[in-house]
Amino acid sequence: MKLYWHPFSVFPRRVQIALREKGIACEEVVVDLPGGALRSPEFLRRNPFGQVPVLEDGATVISESIAILEYLEERQPSPALLPRDPERRALARQLMLWSGDYLAPAWKAWLAPRFDPAIAPNDPTVQQGHHNLTTHLDVLEPRLEGNDYLVGDYSLADVCYAPFITTFDLIGLTDILDRHPRVRAWSNACRTGPP
Amino acid sequence: MKLYWHPFSVFPRRVQIALREKGIACEEVVVDLPGGALRSPEFLRRNPFGQVPVLEDGATVISESIAILEYLEERQPSPALLPRDPERRALARQLMLWSGDYLAPAWKAWLAPRFDPAIAPNDPTVQQGHHNLTTHLDVLEPRLEGNDYLVGDYSLADVCYAPFITTFDLIGLTDILDRHPRVRAWSNACRTGPP
Repeated sequence: MKLYWHPFSVFPRRVQIALREKGIACEEVVVDLPGGALRSPEFLRRNPFGQVPVLEDGATVISESIAILEYLEERQPSPALLPRDPERRALARQLMLWSGDYLAPAWKAWLAPRFDPAIAPNDPTVQQGHHNLTTHLDVLEPRLEGNDYLVGDYSLADVCYAPFITTFDLIGLTDILDRHPRVRAWSNACRTGPP
Repeated sequence: MKLYWHPFSVFPRRVQIALREKGIACEEVVVDLPGGALRSPEFLRRNPFGQVPVLEDGATVISESIAILEYLEERQPSPALLPRDPERRALARQLMLWSGDYLAPAWKAWLAPRFDPAIAPNDPTVQQGHHNLTTHLDVLEPRLEGNDYLVGDYSLADVCYAPFITTFDLIGLTDILDRHPRVRAWSNACRTGPP
């Protein structure tokens, strides 16, 4: 098995976490993202939309982190990273999708000034990013009441959020974590294991 | 079971297709989208991100069309809308995600002038939308060689693309279908059943 990734892209980290949780051996190939390798004909044969992660397992080539996570879950069901009952599986999947659809764009908007000098830290898009991150954590905070993890046991929902949430203290978002103590405890648990 | 939807939103149609394919009885509730009901406190309790579709099944409330489709597949596995082997399931899921991540934004960009008079039909974003729709169909066309449907048998991959692809002739995109004859035949099959 081969995972194509680059440290500048956060989505492959979801796959790296799941591989480690399941103890699946996988060769990790760093794609030269700054050098434009995602647009090379060789890489576009793996993913025509030019994004990492891509997982190769023999002749099977899969892009989209959520599709890869579901594949790993089916290929190696133990330890389980999805609940057993359909209702909680649905909630886990909803959260997996929320993290990419709503948290990720806000997180990128907040970080944009670090990568694009034309975007000032007080740009309205950056402030909107901060606002959307705050309201997203407002949604997560009550879900963590009485739960160490988002849907009870540790699941792919946590795996999908962790690469974003665990950066908050490092990228100037300590204020948001301060206002969401359960999210902070959950972020710590995602990083280091349960207390 | 209750499905919250509105005809102006294309994502709920995926769920409506799956419900009909599986013969699942479901009450359909039209949310007053033009009247702002997606931002009402009542609806935000169902989906804090204010989007349709939302499926209610007893106490279970699920948003995100892909999470809903997976739930319906698990709740009523027959007729199956995902392949049986993990490799083809992964490809189906990859395509489900591609349709939302890449085709949907291009489709919306192309349609934007119809909903926003400030956007001219020759606006660069509209032309980029047309370009991205074309290159997306360039990706799908070879996958339909020798297949009536995207991963062989009819699946959730087709269900996710159908609400977008079947509109092309109605929204001025006949030129793109003309250049992708297999996509055109597949779109017709999604609308009317296999030839």
